[in-house]
Amino acid sequence: MNTVGILGGGQLARMMALAGASLGLRFLVMDTARDACAGQFAPMVVGDYVDPAALAEFASRIDVATFDFENVPAQSAQWLVDRIPVFPNPRALGTAQDRLAEKTLFRELGIPVPDFAVADTREQLDEAIARVGMPCILKTRRLGYDGKGQFRLRTPADADAAWDALGGQAAKVGLILEGFVGFQRELSVVAVRGRDGEFRTWPLTENWHVDGVLSASLAPASADKELAERAFAYARKLADALDYVGVFALELFCRDGELLANELAPRVHNSGHWTIEGAETSQFENHLRAVLGLPLGDTRMLGHACMLNWIGQMPDPTPVLTEASGHWHDYGKTARDGRKVGHATLRADSAVELAEALARVGSRLQREAQVAPVIERLAE
Amino acid sequence: MNTVGILGGGQLARMMALAGASLGLRFLVMDTARDACAGQFAPMVVGDYVDPAALAEFASRIDVATFDFENVPAQSAQWLVDRIPVFPNPRALGTAQDRLAEKTLFRELGIPVPDFAVADTREQLDEAIARVGMPCILKTRRLGYDGKGQFRLRTPADADAAWDALGGQAAKVGLILEGFVGFQRELSVVAVRGRDGEFRTWPLTENWHVDGVLSASLAPASADKELAERAFAYARKLADALDYVGVFALELFCRDGELLANELAPRVHNSGHWTIEGAETSQFENHLRAVLGLPLGDTRMLGHACMLNWIGQMPDPTPVLTEASGHWHDYGKTARDGRKVGHATLRADSAVELAEALARVGSRLQREAQVAPVIERLAE
Repeated sequence: MNTVGILGGGQLARMMALAGASLGLRFLVMDTARDACAGQFAPMVVGDYVDPAALAEFASRIDVATFDFENVPAQSAQWLVDRIPVFPNPRALGTAQDRLAEKTLFRELGIPVPDFAVADTREQLDEAIARVGMPCILKTRRLGYDGKGQFRLRTPADADAAWDALGGQAAKVGLILEGFVGFQRELSVVAVRGRDGEFRTWPLTENWHVDGVLSASLAPASADKELAERAFAYARKLADALDYVGVFALELFCRDGELLANELAPRVHNSGHWTIEGAETSQFENHLRAVLGLPLGDTRMLGHACMLNWIGQMPDPTPVLTEASGHWHDYGKTARDGRKVGHATLRADSAVELAEALARVGSRLQREAQVAPVIERLAE
Repeated sequence: MNTVGILGGGQLARMMALAGASLGLRFLVMDTARDACAGQFAPMVVGDYVDPAALAEFASRIDVATFDFENVPAQSAQWLVDRIPVFPNPRALGTAQDRLAEKTLFRELGIPVPDFAVADTREQLDEAIARVGMPCILKTRRLGYDGKGQFRLRTPADADAAWDALGGQAAKVGLILEGFVGFQRELSVVAVRGRDGEFRTWPLTENWHVDGVLSASLAPASADKELAERAFAYARKLADALDYVGVFALELFCRDGELLANELAPRVHNSGHWTIEGAETSQFENHLRAVLGLPLGDTRMLGHACMLNWIGQMPDPTPVLTEASGHWHDYGKTARDGRKVGHATLRADSAVELAEALARVGSRLQREAQVAPVIERLAE
């Protein structure tokens, strides 16, 4: 086993290939876009994920397959599984693709979730509103990504507007109404499970989103040990239930010490990018170790790390490169509104030093708003 | 500037490309061998380094050129310099390619060197022996690499055998006789100099060779501050004198507290591989930062690191992968006697922990002899 196929050729595939080179692995990336950024460092098959000829070529050149995005068509995943080892398994992918299946599984496993109800018709929406209460969010069951396909309801009178916005998708991808959680913090567990069931997590991470897109991550999140252990236990239950192999993220809301599961991301995750420099083993390397059945690497971190996402276009790298512990990640993409084009990670031995570095970088890049909530948290 | 051309496509080019991806760089590698291992992660031009057509294609597709080996033909380096920025400059390359020029420069700069003398004829060899004394080593002036092209003389009676072995190369590459230094330790300074003259070094490294090939490196070398500062000052003098841009290594012998310069390697260096996981910024990233005129990254290290070279064939990765701070580097090469095919780096917070990890790995791989001198040093 030495060629890993990755379905999807974005930055996650790119960072996976870069991390896997040292394990002696080769990579083959499949993407619909000829200029997918992983293709700068790995050979590519360009083709549609449901095109049998493209899939056949992809499968014939690899020993094992994995993914850099969760919305892989179910039939493509199944097609691959019938031919080669695929991790994570299609059941895990399928569950994560469907908010209803995902939240139902959370509930079955005793993992607290916000209230939710199916809302596939206008009538069901009214019933769902009555059950879930206000405020709430109407979401597509499938193909949601970074806040797209969502409508927030503040009063029952918003139901018509919500249905106007998303009702047209109800027949195709289904809709779910979820109670809106007035949380204080968003946390994520980035975890890895090996083929043999071995389970490890990186320290709990706190995340900040802007317009539904991750803006900053801080690790370790300030949390007492009990809360962190509870989050890790939820992630472990989930991974064991799905016989999950590889890295995944469990996104959680934290409200008055209560943890509510929001989403399972069945892949390496943006909130784990800080592990490249901040942890002994990165999420990318450990994903590959898991997929290949190799021993998992140590997930401990030294000090504190903050990742800042660059959306739309890359800022000037100088302020980050001149920080002693500043690390730059340019995904080699062309600029485009709303696109994740890169990130930076700052590390420090202490929370105070990290806050100081963030303040310098925020000021020099005129991105004070992006770093402010992280600095505030570090000061607590 | 965003495509870096690398002349030579071995493991150094490979690790450079892997490190430079995060800076948003693209790479183009030129090598005579179609299966050069850097080609697994970067596009390649296959061709002879002195073939004008191949060089022209290479130069037309890149913004700046650098090297992964020092024996670049002088005319090829000059050809490139006439067309695009090239770092390090050909004078630095030329000096490092010629043991006589190199040692003459060391002496001019006040950097102590073992005695040496030209020995291009059988007569000159006798004169050189009289001047340098015994024991000594006859070496080719050019194209020496990892102990090849060397003959050790114990008594003047060995002169005939030495001439038989190397005299045939005298007319083509020149010969130099060097006094043999009965050193206690081999050290290297791995350093980087920016386009603006900024100079940084990683901590002093101690090296162990077997059959002329690097076997293990330990950082930081146990050395008092004065000795380390002296070594760094030599490296700085050399870099300034050559207007060097990029990473280089200065190899030194240490004899009774005296430092004697052995060799300048004008490139990223095997004794700096531990910086990938052991230092805040690796030698590979800092070489690229220097070449591109970006701010240099921090070179500090945390704790202790030991690199073990894998020669000929890769051992079982499991003992290293199961170490909490064990990092594996498989260069993706086919096995061949004497070939550098990979390395491992072990890190630890303390010397005692590093020695323990080395003992476990050495024992499980049945490579006790490789780790023994490092463990011995760590116990001092």
